[in-house]
Amino acid sequence: MSTRPLGVAVIGHSFMGKAHSHAWRSVGAFFPDVPAVRQAVLVGRDAARVAAAATAYGWESSATDWREVLTRDDVDLVDVCLPGHLHAEVAEAALAAGKHVLCEKPLANDLAEAESMVRSARLARSAGVRSTVGFNYRRVPALALARELVASGQIGAVREVRLAYLQDWLTDAAAPMTWRLRRETAGSGALGDLASHAVDQLRFLTGHEVTSVSATTRTFVAQRPGPDGPEPVTVDDAAWATLETDGGAVSSLEVSRVAAGRRNSLTIEVYGEHGSLGFDLERLNELRVHDRDTHGGTATVLVTDPGHPYVDAWWPPGHVLGWEHTFVHQAADLLRAIGDGTDPTPSFEDGLEVQRVLSAVEQSAADGRRVVLSPAAAAAV
Amino acid sequence: MSTRPLGVAVIGHSFMGKAHSHAWRSVGAFFPDVPAVRQAVLVGRDAARVAAAATAYGWESSATDWREVLTRDDVDLVDVCLPGHLHAEVAEAALAAGKHVLCEKPLANDLAEAESMVRSARLARSAGVRSTVGFNYRRVPALALARELVASGQIGAVREVRLAYLQDWLTDAAAPMTWRLRRETAGSGALGDLASHAVDQLRFLTGHEVTSVSATTRTFVAQRPGPDGPEPVTVDDAAWATLETDGGAVSSLEVSRVAAGRRNSLTIEVYGEHGSLGFDLERLNELRVHDRDTHGGTATVLVTDPGHPYVDAWWPPGHVLGWEHTFVHQAADLLRAIGDGTDPTPSFEDGLEVQRVLSAVEQSAADGRRVVLSPAAAAAV
Amino acid sequence: MSTRPLGVAVIGHSFMGKAHSHAWRSVGAFFPDVPAVRQAVLVGRDAARVAAAATAYGWESSATDWREVLTRDDVDLVDVCLPGHLHAEVAEAALAAGKHVLCEKPLANDLAEAESMVRSARLARSAGVRSTVGFNYRRVPALALARELVASGQIGAVREVRLAYLQDWLTDAAAPMTWRLRRETAGSGALGDLASHAVDQLRFLTGHEVTSVSATTRTFVAQRPGPDGPEPVTVDDAAWATLETDGGAVSSLEVSRVAAGRRNSLTIEVYGEHGSLGFDLERLNELRVHDRDTHGGTATVLVTDPGHPYVDAWWPPGHVLGWEHTFVHQAADLLRAIGDGTDPTPSFEDGLEVQRVLSAVEQSAADGRRVVLSPAAAAAV
Amino acid sequence: MSTRPLGVAVIGHSFMGKAHSHAWRSVGAFFPDVPAVRQAVLVGRDAARVAAAATAYGWESSATDWREVLTRDDVDLVDVCLPGHLHAEVAEAALAAGKHVLCEKPLANDLAEAESMVRSARLARSAGVRSTVGFNYRRVPALALARELVASGQIGAVREVRLAYLQDWLTDAAAPMTWRLRRETAGSGALGDLASHAVDQLRFLTGHEVTSVSATTRTFVAQRPGPDGPEPVTVDDAAWATLETDGGAVSSLEVSRVAAGRRNSLTIEVYGEHGSLGFDLERLNELRVHDRDTHGGTATVLVTDPGHPYVDAWWPPGHVLGWEHTFVHQAADLLRAIGDGTDPTPSFEDGLEVQRVLSAVEQSAADGRRVVLSPAAAAAV
Repeated sequence: MSTRPLGVAVIGHSFMGKAHSHAWRSVGAFFPDVPAVRQAVLVGRDAARVAAAATAYGWESSATDWREVLTRDDVDLVDVCLPGHLHAEVAEAALAAGKHVLCEKPLANDLAEAESMVRSARLARSAGVRSTVGFNYRRVPALALARELVASGQIGAVREVRLAYLQDWLTDAAAPMTWRLRRETAGSGALGDLASHAVDQLRFLTGHEVTSVSATTRTFVAQRPGPDGPEPVTVDDAAWATLETDGGAVSSLEVSRVAAGRRNSLTIEVYGEHGSLGFDLERLNELRVHDRDTHGGTATVLVTDPGHPYVDAWWPPGHVLGWEHTFVHQAADLLRAIGDGTDPTPSFEDGLEVQRVLSAVEQSAADGRRVVLSPAAAAAV
Repeated sequence: MSTRPLGVAVIGHSFMGKAHSHAWRSVGAFFPDVPAVRQAVLVGRDAARVAAAATAYGWESSATDWREVLTRDDVDLVDVCLPGHLHAEVAEAALAAGKHVLCEKPLANDLAEAESMVRSARLARSAGVRSTVGFNYRRVPALALARELVASGQIGAVREVRLAYLQDWLTDAAAPMTWRLRRETAGSGALGDLASHAVDQLRFLTGHEVTSVSATTRTFVAQRPGPDGPEPVTVDDAAWATLETDGGAVSSLEVSRVAAGRRNSLTIEVYGEHGSLGFDLERLNELRVHDRDTHGGTATVLVTDPGHPYVDAWWPPGHVLGWEHTFVHQAADLLRAIGDGTDPTPSFEDGLEVQRVLSAVEQSAADGRRVVLSPAAAAAV
Repeated sequence: MSTRPLGVAVIGHSFMGKAHSHAWRSVGAFFPDVPAVRQAVLVGRDAARVAAAATAYGWESSATDWREVLTRDDVDLVDVCLPGHLHAEVAEAALAAGKHVLCEKPLANDLAEAESMVRSARLARSAGVRSTVGFNYRRVPALALARELVASGQIGAVREVRLAYLQDWLTDAAAPMTWRLRRETAGSGALGDLASHAVDQLRFLTGHEVTSVSATTRTFVAQRPGPDGPEPVTVDDAAWATLETDGGAVSSLEVSRVAAGRRNSLTIEVYGEHGSLGFDLERLNELRVHDRDTHGGTATVLVTDPGHPYVDAWWPPGHVLGWEHTFVHQAADLLRAIGDGTDPTPSFEDGLEVQRVLSAVEQSAADGRRVVLSPAAAAAV
Repeated sequence: MSTRPLGVAVIGHSFMGKAHSHAWRSVGAFFPDVPAVRQAVLVGRDAARVAAAATAYGWESSATDWREVLTRDDVDLVDVCLPGHLHAEVAEAALAAGKHVLCEKPLANDLAEAESMVRSARLARSAGVRSTVGFNYRRVPALALARELVASGQIGAVREVRLAYLQDWLTDAAAPMTWRLRRETAGSGALGDLASHAVDQLRFLTGHEVTSVSATTRTFVAQRPGPDGPEPVTVDDAAWATLETDGGAVSSLEVSRVAAGRRNSLTIEVYGEHGSLGFDLERLNELRVHDRDTHGGTATVLVTDPGHPYVDAWWPPGHVLGWEHTFVHQAADLLRAIGDGTDPTPSFEDGLEVQRVLSAVEQSAADGRRVVLSPAAAAAV
């Protein structure tokens, strides 16, 4: 297996499956130094639709039975692009079959599933089987640069982190019911979908763990039109939380799917003892930096210069990257880890930590009190 | 008294006294339709310093004893520009002496004082004596326009309000101790100073009352250099809260004096059913508007056009206003109310409502739980 | 005359007269170290209107005959806020009467007048009588800081300067005829009104003199409704030029009164060997700086910090200034020069240099060729 | 040939070859409705390097002799990604061989070559062989939307267009000599490289033809270090021009490679009778719109909504695209034209028109006078 290209299977072919397909198709062109891949098989429920998608997206084949795909010798890596309630079953089976696993975020829909997945990942890891969870925004060059700047002490110890992930696709009260708005399929609403990214960034950028949570959640539109008439919405439209961390920082968190005018705005501000950083996903090529070198102001840095994370693989300075490049970077980092025999990040343990914070948000919102988390979450699994 | 100019006394001549002096000196030039004023007397503790300030700022006279000033027949209006712990005593005495009162914000340092001031204001009001609290940001043209847009239904019912007032003058841990950092003189830190403005805006923009508060506060720098060595800081450096309102909105609130790179950034975002508004005090001439008319995007409106609140008094479109113009507008609105025999806004009751929210923030932060406010606060005084 | 306040007369009381009145009324409050002034007299043609304005704007008296005012012993400084075609007559008479003169920009409507004014200013100067032309944007703190940065070599030798002054009040073809659109009263259109500021900034920021001009002008709306039917517009709506300088820089210049959406946007970009600066009058408290210290990006600096030009006179950091503060600064600088017995800047010679460039723009546009200016313009007068 | 995928050959594999390879590899995944392609062959001079690139970029084969490739029956489309002085030879040979041609911009290095290429394209067109020039910025969704808005009359007749394309990679005088800085290989400097895009946009957005040019060019760094010591730079570093059009608009144009801090900033502002549009390539997902619907302000529109040009092929709203997506769109549009049997745009005639304007810029700069272009340029070939 050492020199042949790694065979990849992607399970799921809608939004995430399309984005991941682009990554697997493109990674070798931009990161020729990582292990080569074959787009072995794309998996979906509808044979005709998945076959058409497989052709369009450059896959050698398509399939409808993911369990069968796990038995294929030419499949080395399984990329789980399914809704959250299916993550645990597929990812754990793939790990048990000795396949490296990339699992979309959030890791699972509840804590118990996430803990189980961590146990599976640990077992597989001891056999050299790798696993990672798809918090792709760690691979936005500007955010990777932000992490470098924080880690290097450029802004000093972090005191405050402002996190908001605001979208507006549910602003209209007449927007129809979907599986994303039912607790049994989606687990939660803006919380699992959007806050999971934000919490992961908090941990990624600062290296801190969350120690307490005070939260509020709200469903602004209580029912929406379904195929058979109005249906109750059983997940949150928006959530707010204040998070304390073991590193001494305090973070505010706000997520919403009804923030009119915000299409996909993950904004992050990090305030340290000597400076601050700012980011907005809608301008993802830019990082704002305030420190002792910025004339008292805040610099807008276009993160496309030589030496900036990931961008040497792409174009000359000033030629901006798109959202889906984060998946190319994610693929490259995973392949490099597999090639090097190291564990990729973020791990399933990272996914579990995020899950624990989201769970605490729900508990705090329900109880109307601050919830304290024990610091050594993953260790206890 | 009908036709002679109103005699004004300003008590205090540092930062606020200077800003208010500019307002009294300028109001007639820009708002010739409001009752005329005389800059009668500026009051301070140090005779020489207040005399110099009075000359520079255009006052006819200066004085050191505010009680004596209250006895002067040619003083009709007392403008209290003192630290918060002195507000109640001076403002209540002035009202008792039959003088109209403008009192700087926050209304008081604690709830009991604020309640007492409301009682005094009510008593005086019945005798035609007017009172108002100096939440000057209600007079930023862009925020007055925002209120108009919300009130007209342009963005529909308000769901979310994001409030942050971030400054950075205490970022450096070596910044020295001042009276502003001692609870006995300042009441609180960023909370009273900054959050008071933000909470007032929440009420001003939406017309909602706060019904519950979940909050956290933090003092990042626990001691600072005083004249005789390190002294403990006994107020907050920063605070976070989630506020629910009786109008169905949820508001996040974040205030800080250690947000490196943010000199004086009060940012407000209002999300409604059909649109949203955005504001930043560092660009106070601009309002961001997203609604059905903005091509799916967000318009940056320079609030200097004919018909925009207050600006017809000033310059042609595009000639931007400064921060201190808010005090000119405040003076004009107060004078117009006095002239019309109506009650100016915001009232002392408004000041009390803000105080009650700030008090709930402290209580919630201390107790680690959501605090529910009774809806009819002022009525209970 | 040494210790009594300087008596000021402002000639004209519309837009500029109002703005200058604010400056004379306010300068002592913010710049207590400069010579004191008395608002002696405001001059206008209509006795009732100027009297009302004088009262509102804080003047001791009003008058209708500017020649008579020039004879008053208690008037030391004459501030000419009249349309351009009246500048020469009034300013020269005032200088001849021994009064210091502040003359609004542009210095004159044509070159011959400007040259005559320079001769008068030189004559008066030898008798200690001071004169200056009102290019007030030199006193925007951000632009004064820009000049300091250029002069200190922070961005190296200047190569390119992009200048644009765009307004939109004539966008609508139905906007009515005014004296500003007739050559005999206004001299030119956007050119004299807007380009004069831009050209002055080019000279101010770089210290270079313009050596050649290639230009185009255009009147987009050839006639506009007058009181008696359509009238021809005899000045430019917009102008474009490329300017070469004796310092090796090349500057682009674009001015317009029909740039829809630009209310009052003077934008300036200065590109040097090691960095660049950027400015927009609609955000006049901000300067953008790119140099070796800005992480490869461009810093937006809020020019309200201690040590920034002029701002120590005002408020704490982050409390932004308005457009009319530039006139306060202009007054302070002029008074300081008078007090110190030095010549204020910009001088009438500076005004003449601007006029020569504008004249070359018109000539180049008419001839369709590059016009070369002799370098020692003012010296030749 | 009707149903088999079109065989593509890309000639050149450096910057542009890499970007075009990505487009050919990706077009089918995002635009499944256009004719399918095969990545037949990548061509380069160095056999080993082109073979490695071909493998990385997904090509079936590589070759070193482009003439031989033109003889292959399985090659239907030749994509010329070579330096400008090689365009004519390869593109004309390909057309003569009956291959559809996509030629990188600018079309050629001089007018004579461009005219010859137009003749070849016309000849081929009559035989159903298609040709297009790679002004890829026509395929930026925001610019395609801008064109739609102009064409629909949303901003009225266009009066002014401000064009600037600023880069800074030659700011440092010590940056080394390259073929791009020699006239014999590059034709011109910023002019051909950057101004060509800007002029194409002027024509694309307005539909106007340039009728006169007044221009200036400058080489700020006259010599640069070569392998054997200093060498003279024989192309421009920067250029400025004012362009008049047959539609009544006037356009300013500024291009530079020494604009410190501007990595890749093509900025476009279009001012019409009723509104205006704005764009910056460094934020290429955004279009600024001012019209009667934007509250007097300017809306920043994230061009990722359903119905916006091209973006339905990609992700949900707010998921921004990168610079290289323009090449995917270019490929899709070309394939669709081939499939439909229509002529793709921009044509070689469009490329020639741009060339004529650039040529006039050089002539005007040299002669110091306005150069008038005859309106029917391409027709005269």
